[in-house]
Order: sequence, then structure tokens, then C-alpha cells
Amino acid sequence: MVSKQILEEQIKAQGDLVRKLKAAKESKEKIDEQVAKLLELKAELSNAGEDSNAAYSNQKFTLKTPKGTRDYSPQQMALRNSVLEKIISVFKKHGAETIDTPIFELKEVLTGKYGEDSKLIYDLKDQGGEILSLRYDLTVPFARYLAMNKITNIKRYHIAKVYRRDNPSISRGRYREFYQCDFDIAGAYDPMIPDAECVRIVFEILKVLEMPSFVIKLNHRKLLDGMFEACGVPATSFRAICSAVDKLDKSPWEEVRKEMVEEKGLSEASADLIGEYVQLNGKADLVDKLLADDKLSKNKSAVEGLEAMKLLLKYCDLYGSSDKVLFDLSLARGLDYYTGVIYEAVLLADNASSSEEVSVGSVAGGGRYDNLAGMFDPKGRQVPCVGVSIGVERLFAVMEARKAAEKIRTTETEVYVATAQKNLHEERMRLCAELWAEGFKVEHSYKKNPKLLQQLQHCEEYGIPLALILGESEIKNGVVKLRNVTTREEVEVGRSKLADEIRQRLQGGCQNGS
Amino acid sequence: MVSKQILEEQIKAQGDLVRKLKAAKESKEKIDEQVAKLLELKAELSNAGEDSNAAYSNQKFTLKTPKGTRDYSPQQMALRNSVLEKIISVFKKHGAETIDTPIFELKEVLTGKYGEDSKLIYDLKDQGGEILSLRYDLTVPFARYLAMNKITNIKRYHIAKVYRRDNPSISRGRYREFYQCDFDIAGAYDPMIPDAECVRIVFEILKVLEMPSFVIKLNHRKLLDGMFEACGVPATSFRAICSAVDKLDKSPWEEVRKEMVEEKGLSEASADLIGEYVQLNGKADLVDKLLADDKLSKNKSAVEGLEAMKLLLKYCDLYGSSDKVLFDLSLARGLDYYTGVIYEAVLLADNASSSEEVSVGSVAGGGRYDNLAGMFDPKGRQVPCVGVSIGVERLFAVMEARKAAEKIRTTETEVYVATAQKNLHEERMRLCAELWAEGFKVEHSYKKNPKLLQQLQHCEEYGIPLALILGESEIKNGVVKLRNVTTREEVEVGRSKLADEIRQRLQGGCQNGS
Repeated sequence: MVSKQILEEQIKAQGDLVRKLKAAKESKEKIDEQVAKLLELKAELSNAGEDSNAAYSNQKFTLKTPKGTRDYSPQQMALRNSVLEKIISVFKKHGAETIDTPIFELKEVLTGKYGEDSKLIYDLKDQGGEILSLRYDLTVPFARYLAMNKITNIKRYHIAKVYRRDNPSISRGRYREFYQCDFDIAGAYDPMIPDAECVRIVFEILKVLEMPSFVIKLNHRKLLDGMFEACGVPATSFRAICSAVDKLDKSPWEEVRKEMVEEKGLSEASADLIGEYVQLNGKADLVDKLLADDKLSKNKSAVEGLEAMKLLLKYCDLYGSSDKVLFDLSLARGLDYYTGVIYEAVLLADNASSSEEVSVGSVAGGGRYDNLAGMFDPKGRQVPCVGVSIGVERLFAVMEARKAAEKIRTTETEVYVATAQKNLHEERMRLCAELWAEGFKVEHSYKKNPKLLQQLQHCEEYGIPLALILGESEIKNGVVKLRNVTTREEVEVGRSKLADEIRQRLQGGCQNGS
Repeated sequence: MVSKQILEEQIKAQGDLVRKLKAAKESKEKIDEQVAKLLELKAELSNAGEDSNAAYSNQKFTLKTPKGTRDYSPQQMALRNSVLEKIISVFKKHGAETIDTPIFELKEVLTGKYGEDSKLIYDLKDQGGEILSLRYDLTVPFARYLAMNKITNIKRYHIAKVYRRDNPSISRGRYREFYQCDFDIAGAYDPMIPDAECVRIVFEILKVLEMPSFVIKLNHRKLLDGMFEACGVPATSFRAICSAVDKLDKSPWEEVRKEMVEEKGLSEASADLIGEYVQLNGKADLVDKLLADDKLSKNKSAVEGLEAMKLLLKYCDLYGSSDKVLFDLSLARGLDYYTGVIYEAVLLADNASSSEEVSVGSVAGGGRYDNLAGMFDPKGRQVPCVGVSIGVERLFAVMEARKAAEKIRTTETEVYVATAQKNLHEERMRLCAELWAEGFKVEHSYKKNPKLLQQLQHCEEYGIPLALILGESEIKNGVVKLRNVTTREEVEVGRSKLADEIRQRLQGGCQNGS
């Protein structure tokens, strides 16, 4: 634990920063972010023993959200909802249904599914009755749902929060409570047809979110296994070597090789053979080349994986997603349960020091898992599944960074009804009711006598496109002043023509699309 | 615990029922419901000691969701999402933002907020670190959010799950995990203007959900307190007597009177005085009558409450919601924290034995609570709030019952691409990709060679309005057969004109609106 003295110094420095930002009239978001850090530090100090901050002395406890969690502000929610809407529109384009499951499961449902990560599961207190845990992902509850309801085929998406008692780096946007967004196709179908649709869905989602550059890497667990076998890896080491290969997106080959040889006891010769294969990536021509490869062509599992890959690439071509897919032998994926195709989408960015594009992070991943649902079926009946998990938290972060300069609307209000003189609030309320009845999104001040300037400032702050201004003369003459908030241009409109005029202006692009 | 023998008999009877339903070819929903009950019984038997059901013998644990929780099927989710969309559209018409908070809070945040219901709070296990509990409602997290972020005004809605370790009657649709849907206006404004907007919002929501008959009852805590004082209730008994009055929607006056006198020690004379007032309900004329009432007109709190009610009724009139509001002196609301106006919306139905309409249940409730946010502020700063909680679970149940006869679409698929002969799956995939690129919602079979009949049955089952049928002759001639699934009428359309033709048909109402 950081000492109290250090914390106090950090708080002082952070307080200075906040005051500087305020003095420089920085954006509310920027200031709020630093204030949040200040509050975190103060909370830590309070936990560290005694609370030296007088402002908190009336508080019996620290005013904060639980560690690793956060509230979502209206700005964050507006952005998240617009991103999720776009993702859902893609799922619906492909005929997906949605389901929901409880936030907690019987602990036994989760037991034995996550290996050593099981220690990250949140348990509920035993208050008499069942022993429960918060869900760790959406895949295990989905498999439980299939088995419990004896469902043999379904195409569903599920967007919901999951929980992991990790010590995540909050500064890098990782939390203990976060959203997952899964799409899966369950059912016994013909090879690679549902698998190719999952790839197409990832393709469409990254297009609809206007990600400038990305690649969807593909590989196959059977090819990996066959390759390991052909390179002389003992069968008992397949998963361990696979998880070493999985680190190639973050570590150079030399380190991965070292792990294989020194930690996992692989021979240097085997490691070097693997090293040659995992550098390879390409398209259908690479599949053909490997089908003709001396070692792989003699291995049943490798040939099966390559044939499957060939079919998948052909289907990706038919589905129009092939210009973004890449068959990549270094792709391994961490999870044990995959049984067939695996894929992972990564965003690319220009590398400043070369003309190459480099990966800036995985935004979707998945694969085929044909044996998971069977673990829940009393008779062990399998339901083949293939699916993809969209990394929405990272996509939210990318979109937040992209929109940081833009003002995100948190409401959809179209018209603000303002008054220019005192004691006209009843006129204002009457006009609001008229416009609500016409179906418009309308607000006015909850104060009887707000200042006109404040009312107009509210419109600008919230991006409301139109303001109506009522004064005594307007009321007498049966008109209202209609103001375009952006251009500040004003015209008088007769009350009887008002709804049509508003409708026309909103259709004419005056509406501030969020 | 029910004995094993009784359970076995129940399981036998339930199994017979399921078989009968299946033999009678009842709807899948009906059968599934009874199967679910059968599984519940089997699970109970399994818990009761040993599992006599062979089917479960491979299972190490009972395959079920935790007690008091359930999965939501695609049908339920489709209905819920359509109801929530309508409710959210009303919130947006009134300029509301949305926020989200974590599913759990520091236990201390919840402590002391729910009185004796605190025993229903779900605690998380102490796994080292903070002591956490699942949220019990959305109001306390909202107050914590306001204080923590020093927000003095916001108009927000929040739709999310909450958790109560109750022993609810599942058969009456009550659960331990359920949705709440709250709308609140925080901020220091002029009297009754935000309060009247909350009433208007309830009015609009029940209209947009096409509830045939409802009433929004209004009352005021200050009037209740003044009335109790005027009737000789000791100040220390106000809340106790208030909670007795709150039972008038379920119990007759005689029982409530008995509780007041025998359990709460009120004098018979006082109880009788209260009994006269709580029978009263009406509109503005009742307010005037009570303002002239001997006892009430002399009581400061009662007069304040009545003046407030007068203003609220006037504003409801201006907002066009007055034909559905009723000033009702029997409305008390259970929660302690209300400080001003209180309201509750109830659905009405024709009483079979008389011409009167009777209440069939509360679907929204709320009021003003000016002191709650201050409980979280280190300096005790108050943020006045008024809000309403929409009883979405009950509304879902009402809508489910209403739609039971209708088929609810769980997908939005517009076009299904079918093939009439074998080995045309690549043609099908190519056509799907063309139509996805045009923005249509399109599906096809994941099987290479599905039977045409099965493909068309899928369209009927899922309510897909249009099917495209590709055969060898169509491919040769550059056409497709376009089939209206409902009328079964088929026409040939040239490939180049296909997108336009589909668009026209979907616009022409062929689209099956869900």
C-alpha cells in the first residue's frame, strides 16, 4: 500500500492540475476525468487509515463505486447506445434473435470451465439456499441455456455485462464489470457455412462502425494440431504449445521460442520447425502451398484443417468479405474449447516509422466450439456451435477517442420552448403539450421565470436545433418566434402553421443527428 | 420441504399433462411452460435427497437457473424490447438522458435505506477487498451518483435489473431478478412544474402502450401529514398510520381501521375521522372543498399540501393529462422518503358484476423525495428530486397476455433465399451477399441441400414476408422466383430489377411489422 504521505502529495499535485484545467477553461469532460482521479486518490487515502480530508469527515464511508467499476455518464451512454445500435442492426440483418440469462448462475455451472481463471469469479455470499456466482462470460450461460431447454439450433446475440475479479489496468480501459457482445450459431449444419457468416458479420460490423483499416485473421485448430504433430510436439503438449503461439501477437518469436524450449520442454528442432510455419500468412494460394507441403500433406489433421480453410476462404469470397480476411498460421487463441476454425479481427494503423500497417488491438474473436453444450447435457448430447465475441469495450474506447473533439448529443430534443418575459410559464406549458401531441420531442425550463439568455444557452449546450420564443406580443398576435439555434436566424410563424413548419425544418436537416 | 413421495406424484401428474398437450398439438409456448414446471419439480426432487430420475444421473448438479430467476426466450425478449422501445421513446420526447451504474454497490451505500427490507439484499462473498451488495433498486444508486458527481440537476432515465432475496410468488410473475424502469428529474425548480411532467410521462407511456383504461392517482405527503394531525394522530405515529392507509388498495376500510386501532394504538375517534377523509377522491373541486374544510383549513401542512395539489391539477390540465388523473386521499405509498406529491397509476377493467371499473394493479408509482441525495453528500447538500418508476414487469405480463394469441416475430428478416435443387448453395450465398450489400435483412439455410418445403416452412414459422427461390432454370435465365410467403403467390423477377422490386414490396406493407 502506498504510504499516506505519498498519497497526500499525489492529491496535492492532482488538485493543482484540476485547478489549472479549470482556470484554462478546459472541456467539462477533461476536467471531470481529472476530478475523478482526484476522488480516487482521496478514497485511497481514506482507506489508508484516517481521512485527512475535511470534506469527507461527515461521510461514514467513502463515496465511490466498487473497485474496478464505474458509472456511465449520459455522454458515455449516448455513445455506447449508438455503437450498440449499429452492431445490433448487423445481427438483425442476419436474422439473429436475442436472449437474456440471469446475472448469476449456480456456482457449479461455472465450475471447471475457466481453468485457472476461475479464481476471478465473483461469488455471492451464502445467505442460505443456493451457492451462486456472477457470470464470467456469456458463452457458458449460453451452453447451459441450450442444454436446459434442449435447443438444438438457434442463431442468437446477447449483449450484457460480465464480471471478473481481476486487477485490471483501469487506465487502459479495463474493468471488473464490462460488456460482452456475443453472436453464436448453434446447430448441426454443413461445413463452414455458418462459420463464414460469422466472419461476414465481423466484416459488416467493422464497416458500419467506419473502422478505417482492419484484418480478420483466420486459422484452424485442426491445422494447428496437425502442424504440431508434424513438427514433433508430443500430443500432451499441444495445448501448452498452442498457448505459447498465442503470444506471438504481443511477443517476438525469439521469446515465444524460449518459452517453448525452456518452460515447456520442447526440443529446439521442433521449435524451429514451428517457427517457420507460424511466420506464414496469405490467402488461398498459401492453403494450396501447404497442402503440397512435405510434412503437412502426410498429416490427417493438418489436411483436414487445410481443406476446411480452403472452403472457408471460398465462402468468404462468395460473401464479399475476402479482401479483409487473412489466413494466418500464428493465430492460436487462448481458450481451450475451440475445435475448428478460429478467428480474430484486429484494427490496423499506419506505422510511423515504416510504410507498413501495424495492429493496434483485437476487436473481435471467436471460433467453433462443438463440445461445450454437451458438457451440460445429462446424456452428453452435443450441439455444434460457432460464434464471435465483439470487443465492444475496446470499440467504445476507439469511438470515444474519435469523437472526443465532437459534441455528442445526450438527448434527442428537437424543440425548446422559451419565453421572453415573466409569468408566461403557463403559455409555455400549453405550447409544449400541443407539440407533444404532434409527436415532437420538446422541452422547456422547469422555472417559472427563467432568463431568455439561459434558455438559449441550454439549447446550444444540448445541441437542440430549434427554439420557439413566446412573448406577450407574439401571444397577442397568435404567432411564435422560431429560432434556428445554430444560425441564430429568427422568423415569425403563425400558431396554426407551426407544426408543419417545424416538421419541414427538421426534415430539412436542421435535426442534429447524434 | 415437500416429501419425496409427494414430489414424485406431482412429477407424474405434470408429465401426464405435458404428454396430453403434445398429443393435442398445443402451441410450443404452452408446452414449454409446462415442461419448465416439470423440470422445476424434478430439480426439487433432486435437491430433496437422491435423484430418482435417470435422465439426470450423469449431471453432477441440477440444470436450472438460480431460484427466483429465469432465462428470457427470444419471444419474451422481442416483446420486452418492443415495450421498452416505446417507453424510451416517451422519455426521449421529454428530453431525458440515460445513465448506468454498476450492478453492485459498496454495502454501506445501501445500508439504512430500506428499513426491514434490508434483509432482502444480496451480499457478495467477502473474497478480500471491499464488501459489496447487489443493488436493490435504482433510486439509491441514483442518489449516490448525484452526490458523488456533485450533480445538481439532471433529467435521466435508467432501465436495469435489480435484485431482492424475496420469496416471491413466481406463479404471479414476481422474481428475485427483475427490471426497473425509472425516470427522475433532479434540480431546484419552481413548484409542481417537473412534478406535472412526471404525471404527463406516465400518461403518455400508458397511451403509447395502448392500455385501454387507467387512472393516475395523486396525493401529497404534506396533506396526509396535516390530515393526520387534524384527526388527532400523534406525530410519532404518522408513518405507521400512513403505511396502514397504504393498504386501502388491497384491504377494506374495516380491516385498515382495525390495524390502526388495535395494532397502532390509535383512538377510535381519530380512526373514524381519517376514515371519512380517505374515502374522498375527485378533482379541483375536491381541493376547494377541503380548503374550506373546518379542520384542514386550520392546519398549515394540510393547506400547503392542498395548495400544491391545486397547482398540480392546473398544470395537468395545461399538459392535457387531466382526464386521467384523480386526486385520491387514500393514496399513501409505502416508502418513507417521499416529501411531497405522490402518485400511482393503476389499470382498470370492467367489473363483471357491476358497471364500475375496478383496479387490476399498479403499473407506475413515484413522488417527490427532496432529502435522499443529501444523505450521500458529505456536507449534506440536498438535491430536490421527483420521479416515477414504471412497473415494466407488470406491463410485460399484460402485453404477453394480450399478445398470447398473436405470433410475435423474434427476428426482423425480410427476405429468405431458398433453392429448389441440389448443389446450388454457392448461388444462394452469392445472392445473399448481393442483398446484404443492398441493406436488406436476409437469411438462407446453413445446409447445402435443404428441402424446399423445409425452407418455406422456416419462412412461415418466423414470419419472413418474402422468399426468393433459385433453381437451375432461373439461374440460366437470369431471374429469381419471388414468393409472397403469406399469399403464396409467386412471380419471376429479373436479377437486375430484384432489389427495387423487394424494396417496393417491403414498403407496400408486405413487411411483417413486429
